[in-house]
Amino acid sequence: MTVSYDWLEARFARLGALSEASGMLHWDLSVMMPSGGGEARAEQLASLSVLCHELLSERAVAEQLDAAEAAGGLDTWQAANLVEMRRSWRHETALDARFVEAYSKACHACEAVWREARPKADFGLVLPHLEEVVRLVREEAARKAEAFGCTPYEALLDSYEPGGSEAEIDSLFDRLAKELPGLLRDARERQARQAVPLVPEGPFPIAAQEQLGRRLMVLAGFDFAHGRLDVSLHPFSGGTPDDVRVTTRYEENDFTSSLMGVMHETGHALYERGLPARWRRQPVGESRGMGIHESQSLLMEMQACRSPEFLAFLSRFSAAAFGRSGPAWTADNFRRLYHWVQPGCIRVEADEVSYPLHVILRTRLEKAILTDDLQLRDLPGAWNDGMQAFLGLTPPDDRLGCLQDIHWYDGAWGYFPTYTLGAMIAAQLFQAALSAAPEIPGQLARGDFSSLQAWLRRTVHEKASSRFSHVLIEEASGKPLDPAVFMTHLRRRYLGADAA
Amino acid sequence: MTVSYDWLEARFARLGALSEASGMLHWDLSVMMPSGGGEARAEQLASLSVLCHELLSERAVAEQLDAAEAAGGLDTWQAANLVEMRRSWRHETALDARFVEAYSKACHACEAVWREARPKADFGLVLPHLEEVVRLVREEAARKAEAFGCTPYEALLDSYEPGGSEAEIDSLFDRLAKELPGLLRDARERQARQAVPLVPEGPFPIAAQEQLGRRLMVLAGFDFAHGRLDVSLHPFSGGTPDDVRVTTRYEENDFTSSLMGVMHETGHALYERGLPARWRRQPVGESRGMGIHESQSLLMEMQACRSPEFLAFLSRFSAAAFGRSGPAWTADNFRRLYHWVQPGCIRVEADEVSYPLHVILRTRLEKAILTDDLQLRDLPGAWNDGMQAFLGLTPPDDRLGCLQDIHWYDGAWGYFPTYTLGAMIAAQLFQAALSAAPEIPGQLARGDFSSLQAWLRRTVHEKASSRFSHVLIEEASGKPLDPAVFMTHLRRRYLGADAA
Repeated sequence: MTVSYDWLEARFARLGALSEASGMLHWDLSVMMPSGGGEARAEQLASLSVLCHELLSERAVAEQLDAAEAAGGLDTWQAANLVEMRRSWRHETALDARFVEAYSKACHACEAVWREARPKADFGLVLPHLEEVVRLVREEAARKAEAFGCTPYEALLDSYEPGGSEAEIDSLFDRLAKELPGLLRDARERQARQAVPLVPEGPFPIAAQEQLGRRLMVLAGFDFAHGRLDVSLHPFSGGTPDDVRVTTRYEENDFTSSLMGVMHETGHALYERGLPARWRRQPVGESRGMGIHESQSLLMEMQACRSPEFLAFLSRFSAAAFGRSGPAWTADNFRRLYHWVQPGCIRVEADEVSYPLHVILRTRLEKAILTDDLQLRDLPGAWNDGMQAFLGLTPPDDRLGCLQDIHWYDGAWGYFPTYTLGAMIAAQLFQAALSAAPEIPGQLARGDFSSLQAWLRRTVHEKASSRFSHVLIEEASGKPLDPAVFMTHLRRRYLGADAA
Repeated sequence: MTVSYDWLEARFARLGALSEASGMLHWDLSVMMPSGGGEARAEQLASLSVLCHELLSERAVAEQLDAAEAAGGLDTWQAANLVEMRRSWRHETALDARFVEAYSKACHACEAVWREARPKADFGLVLPHLEEVVRLVREEAARKAEAFGCTPYEALLDSYEPGGSEAEIDSLFDRLAKELPGLLRDARERQARQAVPLVPEGPFPIAAQEQLGRRLMVLAGFDFAHGRLDVSLHPFSGGTPDDVRVTTRYEENDFTSSLMGVMHETGHALYERGLPARWRRQPVGESRGMGIHESQSLLMEMQACRSPEFLAFLSRFSAAAFGRSGPAWTADNFRRLYHWVQPGCIRVEADEVSYPLHVILRTRLEKAILTDDLQLRDLPGAWNDGMQAFLGLTPPDDRLGCLQDIHWYDGAWGYFPTYTLGAMIAAQLFQAALSAAPEIPGQLARGDFSSLQAWLRRTVHEKASSRFSHVLIEEASGKPLDPAVFMTHLRRRYLGADAA
């Protein structure tokens, strides 16, 4: 008898549909909505969110979860769905409505002040607001840790990286923190002996850039009957699995960065699109978490599209698209351009080698803050010390230092690690894909993503949330997440033979 | 004590926010959504609709409505809000969920077959589906008539024209039916003695047409911080009062029709935008119904923008926008072009004089069908007879006859009269505006809508649903809706001095 389970499926189908509705309204907010629509949109989203909270925290849901877990008799996917229902329920009911409201208000207030403090490089301005946010985040972590039976940091992490282990992340990050600074130095020394890459000279009309982006998206497997490409201030991938909406922004004088951004978001979008149709709007049918999600965008951007094979194709393809030629448009120049290493203060502009060091610094700092080992007023100094130790740079001010990212000010604690988990997972999955389908590099040299996408769809996308990330990774690649694979990838690309 | 009323305000605020969310998702569906997103969108909209039904039909709502009505102690707007809450509740609870589902399915099925039958001009194909729709509409009308204490037709009408009276509409329409065919004949005889208007020759680049449309919208009072202009297959005005979204479609060879369409939709949009901010997302804060809504679009399109004063301005303004000149761009030619009368088979292409005859025919036919005085199988013949009697035309086939409009096939019975009620109200309101603000024609001659919009905002928009249409009209114009005003307007424009 699966009466309780069926009841839950119906309830979660409704929650899933409402969550999709919210997703579309969020997309519209970022891409289409005129400024004056903000207040009404906030009401719409708040109503949907309150409704979802009510639909999930009704007594009947708890009773049916208990009954379904006791009854058993489910197949593998149903059982996994039930696990995810319970996880979703745990998060929603660990905090009472009054706490959620206070937390939401504190984050909104802090984020608003951060928007003012950042351009002024005035950390002191936002400090009291951030202290309030941290106070509430600590409370959230403590309450959830008790409810879930895990560490407080894991309780936060679980919202972004379900089932993630604090000890494992520490161990992975310790290894990267030890090896990356040296690799970065070596890569830059080697780079100094090579020709400086030429940036193709603009202007490149926006319409032509968009056309080129669309053609590459289609080559990568994006179906415009189930998605769109638009412009937004901060590029993202949103919408729903059947209607995936990618955004980018264009610079008329440089198409190279926007184009890679489009391919990054396309990686996210193809993951959403590849989720199993049978499990639409059910918890088990959702993407597995931010680590795997970022692995899909980085696999596309860093592994496939920055492979020498694809860059050779891209140099010809984009030269033809813009009707251009010359030394900036050779395969060799494109490779040097897209493999250029240059440590800087800003995370979102970082190269592939520096990026994890930005993330590891943030992860260590947020953990120290949450455990009270670091006082918030000492954050700017600790940040700058970390930047000096990892990247040999000291930010000239807090705007380029601890004020640069929205995450903490907006309440996203426990999120940062997923960027670098994603980069490591991407390297490991790409290596596994190459073993399983050795034709991939030859295909990428022709702008053909078919074997790679088929493998990803079968191995990652269609698994959705039917298993935790570590199981998914081990099944896909034959071993647990191994930082050596990522380091080997970086050494080969930035020090080794195939980047000569 | 207004405890119950306050409870209801909170409940209806949530319903209002969900209804706004639905509105935005409908806009997206028509304007942005890729074809493959349809199924998921249907799930999202259905979930929202079921939730709203549940939120409105909960026992507590009925109890609080009773209690609030008994308690009294409300100010005028609160009392009007309570009336509208009850009206909304009555509609939602008159039919049980099973009936609503059967009805919704029947309409979807019928509409789908209609889309196939129309291009084939095959009424027989859709007839059985339409019979099922009519059977259910009759049942809806009977149930609601009993619950509301009105005639079955009024019970349907009430969804579109709250408080509308069947007897009054019959009487108004009888008068128009009697006088319009003669006026139409006289207008065409007079027109035959004038020069045939020249249609400005294209092509007119879409971007330039859009630019011109936007400039006119701004002149009319549209605020792009609270709205958008986009393209859709069927032009409409949607979104929410704080984020009003107008759509149009462009023809490269003729800008004149699209441009008037933009101004028509802008009339709708300004009404929504002008609704009182204090009553956002409450029933009393919503637009008054389709008759008043259409009066706002037609007042803009037919009264203001087709006034000789504005057409003179428009001829100069558009000539300058496209950098053109010549005999097609004179004020005189624009007036003859935009006042051209030419009866045809298709309602949506009809001129101002023919249009009401299309509507009256449909109204009479739908009433006869609902009372069983006309069998559906005899509809094509009755339609063609009516067209011959009213317009002297016989449609060559049912595609240009009784298959042309989606309304009946989609379940919208009792809707048609609002088009012509809107045209009559528009004429009466415009006359009243001219009396109150005699500077309006002079302003329109300079493309200035400020006095007209100020009057409409104060007299119509800000009243929202605080009173029924007939009260609104009488307060605004000093008398009940009088068809003589509309007829006088037509006689002056199409027979009289100012159209010489």
